[in-house]
Amino acid sequence: MPQPLLIGLLVFPNVQQLDLTGPFEVFASIPNATVRLVWKTRDTLTSSTGLRLTPDLTFAECPQLDVLCVPGGAGVNALAEDAETLDFLRRQAAGARYVTSVCTGALVLGAAGLLAGKRASTHWASHDLLGTLGAVPVHARVVRDGNVLSGGGVTAGIDFALTLAAELAGQAEAEAIQLQLEYAPEPPFAAGSPETAPPSVLERVRTRGAAMRREREALVARVAARMG
Amino acid sequence: MPQPLLIGLLVFPNVQQLDLTGPFEVFASIPNATVRLVWKTRDTLTSSTGLRLTPDLTFAECPQLDVLCVPGGAGVNALAEDAETLDFLRRQAAGARYVTSVCTGALVLGAAGLLAGKRASTHWASHDLLGTLGAVPVHARVVRDGNVLSGGGVTAGIDFALTLAAELAGQAEAEAIQLQLEYAPEPPFAAGSPETAPPSVLERVRTRGAAMRREREALVARVAARMG
Repeated sequence: MPQPLLIGLLVFPNVQQLDLTGPFEVFASIPNATVRLVWKTRDTLTSSTGLRLTPDLTFAECPQLDVLCVPGGAGVNALAEDAETLDFLRRQAAGARYVTSVCTGALVLGAAGLLAGKRASTHWASHDLLGTLGAVPVHARVVRDGNVLSGGGVTAGIDFALTLAAELAGQAEAEAIQLQLEYAPEPPFAAGSPETAPPSVLERVRTRGAAMRREREALVARVAARMG
Repeated sequence: MPQPLLIGLLVFPNVQQLDLTGPFEVFASIPNATVRLVWKTRDTLTSSTGLRLTPDLTFAECPQLDVLCVPGGAGVNALAEDAETLDFLRRQAAGARYVTSVCTGALVLGAAGLLAGKRASTHWASHDLLGTLGAVPVHARVVRDGNVLSGGGVTAGIDFALTLAAELAGQAEAEAIQLQLEYAPEPPFAAGSPETAPPSVLERVRTRGAAMRREREALVARVAARMG
């Protein structure tokens, strides 16, 4: 059997569940890998769209992870100034083989000081905020800088996880997982990025996200000021 | 506001969670849509890869759904001969606007007699079994026949759900969801289908799935014999 791997995904109230569940399915398909959801308590919590998820381990119970992964979602705003979460991430990152994020999980890594000088990606609607947190924003679905891997928004987590699976278990294993998950995507529309979406669709999404965007701008400014 | 929609996803022990969580995120993003996980009890259960999910409604509690959706996974084998589940699906299907499946969820719809004479898709490794259950197998990521929509394996659920979202809420809304989920996929490898995967990778996946395949063949033969 290949070497055992312990992969921990941060879970939290108002996580964007597909940020987490896409990589979960890929990672859990790696032979001899164990994937655990980690949070402050083991109480069942609710995703931003209403899916209930149950953490497997508390921060205190969590052994050193081989891979630390932080997904994103509306709930990241509450994490970026939460000392208990940021301390946990820093402690784990110090010993992890890979420190990773999906979507706006990168903002939490940034707030923990873990992206200083690192090339990274995040959801398109928050991408420019990465620089304020000390990272070097790169527009790509998967970005690697040393042992830090970050994915773009939501579904980029699947591309990210397959990329990391290839590093952890070899390309043939990653390809076997891709085949098992029948990941030969055929989006029915060409609206998956700001560059390809019709302008009216982009406007609709920006309008809906305007309040969240303002909150994030203020939050990131506060965090950056404290980081100095 | 658009018309309220109630969308029910069957959840069950050993569901392939990404079959469910991909469409969940798309459907739950439709304005005024409510998505609920439905099962025999509300006890937390475990997916095929170890994610714990909590049903929202029991079969008895579930009102008439607008959209019924059955995901797949190893657990479908136990469902295809389970009278309580098949009765629930038939009862809901009689009044639903759309009867749908992702991945091997199609085998459960088939076992319930809901695919008789219908064009349908499923995971590539079980695709030929659809015909034994009375369906007309079509190799595509999303197949529609009247009010029956079926997706291919696992990640095809995202393509399926966006296609259905466009029918339910209009193409612009589906495009807005696609943009929010940044669904502009870039698989790192070209191994997502049996036609594109390296032969050695296909062989690896077939070997790992051989026991499941034998169990499914026997199961589908039994179910078909009873259907007459």
